[in-house]
Amino acid sequence: MTDALQYAQDHADRFVDELKAWLRIPSVSTDSNHDAQTRRAADWLADNLRDAGLEAVEVVDTAGHPVVLASHHVSDDAPTVLVYGHYDVQPPDPIELWDHDPFEPVEVDGDLVARGAADDKGQVFMHVKAAEAMLGTSRLPVNLKLLVEGEEEIGSKHLPDFLREHQDRLKADVVVVSDTALFAPGVPSIAYGLRGLAYVEVELQGPSKDLHSGVYGGGVENPINALARMISDLHDHDHRVTVEGFYDNVIDLTDDERQAYRDLPFDLEAWKSEAGVSATKSEGDFSVLEGTSGRPTLDVNGIWGGYTGEGAKTVLPSKATAKISCRLVPGQTPGEITDKLRAHFEAHVPDTMTLTFRNLHGGHGVIVDRDAPAMRAAATALEGVFGQRPHFTREGGSIPIVADFKKILGLDTVLMGFGLDSDSIHSPNERFGLDRFHQGIEASIRFMDAFAGQEV
Amino acid sequence: MTDALQYAQDHADRFVDELKAWLRIPSVSTDSNHDAQTRRAADWLADNLRDAGLEAVEVVDTAGHPVVLASHHVSDDAPTVLVYGHYDVQPPDPIELWDHDPFEPVEVDGDLVARGAADDKGQVFMHVKAAEAMLGTSRLPVNLKLLVEGEEEIGSKHLPDFLREHQDRLKADVVVVSDTALFAPGVPSIAYGLRGLAYVEVELQGPSKDLHSGVYGGGVENPINALARMISDLHDHDHRVTVEGFYDNVIDLTDDERQAYRDLPFDLEAWKSEAGVSATKSEGDFSVLEGTSGRPTLDVNGIWGGYTGEGAKTVLPSKATAKISCRLVPGQTPGEITDKLRAHFEAHVPDTMTLTFRNLHGGHGVIVDRDAPAMRAAATALEGVFGQRPHFTREGGSIPIVADFKKILGLDTVLMGFGLDSDSIHSPNERFGLDRFHQGIEASIRFMDAFAGQEV
Repeated sequence: MTDALQYAQDHADRFVDELKAWLRIPSVSTDSNHDAQTRRAADWLADNLRDAGLEAVEVVDTAGHPVVLASHHVSDDAPTVLVYGHYDVQPPDPIELWDHDPFEPVEVDGDLVARGAADDKGQVFMHVKAAEAMLGTSRLPVNLKLLVEGEEEIGSKHLPDFLREHQDRLKADVVVVSDTALFAPGVPSIAYGLRGLAYVEVELQGPSKDLHSGVYGGGVENPINALARMISDLHDHDHRVTVEGFYDNVIDLTDDERQAYRDLPFDLEAWKSEAGVSATKSEGDFSVLEGTSGRPTLDVNGIWGGYTGEGAKTVLPSKATAKISCRLVPGQTPGEITDKLRAHFEAHVPDTMTLTFRNLHGGHGVIVDRDAPAMRAAATALEGVFGQRPHFTREGGSIPIVADFKKILGLDTVLMGFGLDSDSIHSPNERFGLDRFHQGIEASIRFMDAFAGQEV
Repeated sequence: MTDALQYAQDHADRFVDELKAWLRIPSVSTDSNHDAQTRRAADWLADNLRDAGLEAVEVVDTAGHPVVLASHHVSDDAPTVLVYGHYDVQPPDPIELWDHDPFEPVEVDGDLVARGAADDKGQVFMHVKAAEAMLGTSRLPVNLKLLVEGEEEIGSKHLPDFLREHQDRLKADVVVVSDTALFAPGVPSIAYGLRGLAYVEVELQGPSKDLHSGVYGGGVENPINALARMISDLHDHDHRVTVEGFYDNVIDLTDDERQAYRDLPFDLEAWKSEAGVSATKSEGDFSVLEGTSGRPTLDVNGIWGGYTGEGAKTVLPSKATAKISCRLVPGQTPGEITDKLRAHFEAHVPDTMTLTFRNLHGGHGVIVDRDAPAMRAAATALEGVFGQRPHFTREGGSIPIVADFKKILGLDTVLMGFGLDSDSIHSPNERFGLDRFHQGIEASIRFMDAFAGQEV
């Protein structure tokens, strides 16, 4: 292991240069105008994996964006680790709020600033470079597989089928994912919980065409006003979601978990400053940490209708549309919650409006056993890097595929992420600390070593 | 007069061709990208007025779009009529819903379809061509002045100053405006009331930047949800506006006026079909006609926030913005209502949000004396064209400058419009019936004649 760690140190600068090259490829999966670039990001990674010494590397076509699949077999007796990540990124909008071109990485105060720096190119690349370091020093102690997809930001819609189809090639003992965050800078943590997601689009149509607000105003209902009322009614005064049955299947936080939340070294003022808010808002008496990771939510992600250009247009619009998503906790399923949202909107649509309800995507939440061998190996690895035992935490974000790894491949997932909440993933000026990039490479090497040394 | 009417008939086709040429110039005043075209529309009109034989024609610069000013003096003993109109048009958005290019006029079922066909190029051009017919036959019985501005669709913001500055050149006995509608096809009407307008923009900012809805959702308030709640709270269950003091200064409809509304030949089903709605919605127990012309309203004209592109982006947005406007009735003033809207929003903004309130523009409502000489002349003119006495009606739209004609120039305004509610002004496929265009030219000639024959 020491040789591999030394190799990683010796080649640290080149590793960063390579990551920059990958970040320059705008692999925005949700925007079909970027399809060629998205494929180019996959091909780039495959070439890099071949250069790293992986023996079998392939870019596999799917019905959507391709999957990069790589493997290296060292011994039938060694355990097998499957690393999962994604090479697709969020759109850069609102692009005018970036300090630099989102696809021209720059180093600012030790951070690499670019779309995808933390989510997830920078994090999955830690494992790619750890593999190179182990292979380059003949120190790879496990059979290694990598599965890097291009549709995570649009719900991994073709990946479950891919897992089913390639079940044999994906056989492993555990999945490792680095797409989550450290609890705080220098405070190592391993995520044992993720939230799920149900994402829908709701459109109200009133008049069949845009109308003049002078001629018709006062005689017809306005779809923006009507949609605003429906959105307003989705929460009560305690910020609880009012959708019928929304909380029915929620597995409540245990007393132990709530105590663990209180034990975390949480700095509320720093959190508010990172979020850029003057006041927080969470459900009922739940704390901000509980609200953002242990409880389900409902947020409007986008809304539009009528005239949104320069100046004043006195239009009474025909339509108003909102993108609405719920973060789910274990117990809730995206299908159940989408159905309940649909039933709620259908029950409450005014008789002056026509409702169109679209299910955009969803994913299951997950809880991982904190005592599994791979979780213990991850804790050992992080202690080796940071000099302190990691916290076990729940994350507010969603990696829906983690539930599929369990369901389809029968595998638990170790969520060993090196992001920070301040990385501005999905926001302008996304960043990833280069210190954490290098710590992640070290942690990956230490994890493989610790896991290979355990009974599995 | 007969000679002039004959002239108008003889040149009817050319008049339409000229109008089409004018409509091809996209004079969208609200969009600064169209500034050159907007000026071109003014120059085109000035040339056409010179060709029509007007003795003094000028394009006068203002701090905004220019004003076209023309006059023709026939006798110190003749009364003076000031025709007002506007050459600017609404934006064509949403452009994809037009059947044809909005700036390439086409004739469909006897209608001219183009942006500005009815509002207001087609209608002001009736008076231009009536002037040509009267001048071409040496039958102009009044001193004629024309004032055609380029900022009506953005609140005529420089026109009050222009009226003050050019008070001497604008001396007249009455103003005539054709920018309103007939009550129904073949049912002549003269508008004696217009609504005012208060148009504002409200922006809520929560987080200082867009956030990841997984990481932060459940811990911060979402500005779209918050704005939706504020908008929802602007109406009660009777569709009355809840802004404090909103109705304080409303001059209520008299019993006579409410009876006159009931006496109009109103076809509710046809109205619903034109509006493209299955159900109507008006304030309290007021009828649709009362609600759309005799009562004040509040409508959201546009809303935007968060991700509005293709697919799903799990953003918790930083900002949400709405354009909101109120139609006002006499008694209410735009300044008063804008202040009350501002006070309402300031009082109700949640402590998690920062409010930005922008006053975009406003205008006063107006009521004209139905017994004034010019109103009687207009009634005579319309009876001559249609063979029946016109109804006196109130209009739901706003022509804020009409209040300024009274206040600054001391002049009453005759609202003699030939539009129809089905003309889709401010909407895709705006249209103007060519029969009404020619009736309007005849009415203008008959009005000048009737007005010249009266004591004023």
